[in-house]
Amino acid sequence: MTSATLSIDLGAVVRNWQTLDALSEGETGAVVKANGYGLDAAKIAIALARVGARSFFVATADEGLSLRDALGVGPEIYVFSGHMDGDTHQVRTGELTPLLNSVDQMLRHVEALPGHRFGLQLDSGMNRLGMEPAEWLAVRDIALSQQPELVMSHLACADEPSNPMNAQQLETFRAITDGIDAPRSLAATGGTLLGSAYHFDMTRPGVGLYGGLPFADAAPVVTLDLPIIQVREVEAGETVGYGNAWVAPRNSHIATVSGGYADGIIRAMGSKATLYAGDTPCPVVGRVSMDLITADVSNLGEVPETLQLMGKHQSVDAIADAAGTIGYEILTSLGQRYCRVFSE
Amino acid sequence: MTSATLSIDLGAVVRNWQTLDALSEGETGAVVKANGYGLDAAKIAIALARVGARSFFVATADEGLSLRDALGVGPEIYVFSGHMDGDTHQVRTGELTPLLNSVDQMLRHVEALPGHRFGLQLDSGMNRLGMEPAEWLAVRDIALSQQPELVMSHLACADEPSNPMNAQQLETFRAITDGIDAPRSLAATGGTLLGSAYHFDMTRPGVGLYGGLPFADAAPVVTLDLPIIQVREVEAGETVGYGNAWVAPRNSHIATVSGGYADGIIRAMGSKATLYAGDTPCPVVGRVSMDLITADVSNLGEVPETLQLMGKHQSVDAIADAAGTIGYEILTSLGQRYCRVFSE
Repeated sequence: MTSATLSIDLGAVVRNWQTLDALSEGETGAVVKANGYGLDAAKIAIALARVGARSFFVATADEGLSLRDALGVGPEIYVFSGHMDGDTHQVRTGELTPLLNSVDQMLRHVEALPGHRFGLQLDSGMNRLGMEPAEWLAVRDIALSQQPELVMSHLACADEPSNPMNAQQLETFRAITDGIDAPRSLAATGGTLLGSAYHFDMTRPGVGLYGGLPFADAAPVVTLDLPIIQVREVEAGETVGYGNAWVAPRNSHIATVSGGYADGIIRAMGSKATLYAGDTPCPVVGRVSMDLITADVSNLGEVPETLQLMGKHQSVDAIADAAGTIGYEILTSLGQRYCRVFSE
Repeated sequence: MTSATLSIDLGAVVRNWQTLDALSEGETGAVVKANGYGLDAAKIAIALARVGARSFFVATADEGLSLRDALGVGPEIYVFSGHMDGDTHQVRTGELTPLLNSVDQMLRHVEALPGHRFGLQLDSGMNRLGMEPAEWLAVRDIALSQQPELVMSHLACADEPSNPMNAQQLETFRAITDGIDAPRSLAATGGTLLGSAYHFDMTRPGVGLYGGLPFADAAPVVTLDLPIIQVREVEAGETVGYGNAWVAPRNSHIATVSGGYADGIIRAMGSKATLYAGDTPCPVVGRVSMDLITADVSNLGEVPETLQLMGKHQSVDAIADAAGTIGYEILTSLGQRYCRVFSE
């Protein structure tokens, strides 16, 4: 079969959630936006709900409605983008909890759906989503009187524990929320690892669930195996691939595998990535093309049916380094053509 | 609504195909692999079939089977990866035409599906897919006696007209195929633009259909509009986004829009990209994050509901430049969360 196989270890996702859950005394939510970081939001949320997760976070109302369809009634589904114009139907039908980001959104929500649950997102310094402190102080009493499910903010630099921005955002968040009755949340994965001062009533791990940094102790979740289409002999001096990007330094055996940047194998990684045949590295040669990658398999005695891009020898973050990006983008880029195989 | 809108002009795809079709005397196929370069293979193939396209090309048998479901019987569907182990069911059910890349694939095909249509892919120097010339010469008479639908090869450097590799591959292709009865094909979009010597019996445009280089005269096909979630005032010296990547040089108005690298807005473009409000540029500030982008809208009198990333002012290839990649990757990365709107 030409399609590559993306194996997703739901058991590892569950263990990562449980490990992060054990770090804090409050509730532990789960961020499953962007289709569960590319892995399948429905399957992941169902697996986490079985072990006790009760609060899930998505980016948009559309994602929230799909997730409600998968989870059924019961779990809380928070929407980071809040209540936007045109979202009312999804928010109501999906029993979603929009995290209101502005006074405009608050007015829209209480007018369109009076009494419907909501949370509040405050900006503590990242300047991306959430009410500004001054805006919040102006509406705080009215907002709190409506009993929000959660009052939250998000850290800009939590992946860098020594960055003074973390303490500064913590101080701002406390200054504008200390003393309120509503449950509070500040930490995603990075914030959870910064320590209990950042935990408040709920932590919201995302990338750590999926085996990515900054959760260095995470259990790996994904392996990606690419089927070999053919192997050819290439003589010293011959070129391989688009733009003649690789010139064979010696007579070589080159395998062409199915998988390319249309599958989210980011083109920028080029020949910085390595494929593995068991424990044997097979360097990528030439450019990553849309559907195909070429690799030097000269060191193999027997050529297997597949070569591995992600797994035991190469983590999501190692691939990210090769592509000059972060593990989060590697995960969310995972393509639609893969045969996804889930294990528990 | 939080979801961004990806508008796809099927009429422009049709015009691009017709323009390329007019350049050559032979048949003009259409490459719709990778889900039609991210735009919707089924809708594009149906639109092109209506105006006379009879041959379509996909990367894998899985893609071919989906396309057959959309197109119905009649059009030829070629599969670039050939006939791989496990593909037989799809090849038979989908009435697909695998482009056999090796003697192994040829044996598999004739044993599994004797009499079933096929084509042959030859390597003329790219060393990626296709039979090597020596391999081909060994099986050529047997292969031709089975009446292949097409004998094809692919150019490695067709995007660079002055690259001597083009003439070299043309010479190789002619040397190993001149005099055969089967129809021949060498050119994708770039090769089509190299001139009639490269056209043979069929051209196979891909990226040019979708408005991308090297087809500089292509009609643009996609526009991408990102909804604004909120706008905030940021004082001079404040930072925006992850890693405090942008520091406001003056008091500014910053819009946060829905769309990020999980939607295929490649993270590497960072603040090299620009969003547009009508004709007014709004520079991206800070990092592209998973679901959100921040842009400086200080120059706008009135803030619109959406900002445009791709369209009149910024082509697919301009975005590719900002991201350090090629238009092909921008197209195939287009995400699943967009609301896709098709026009004719």
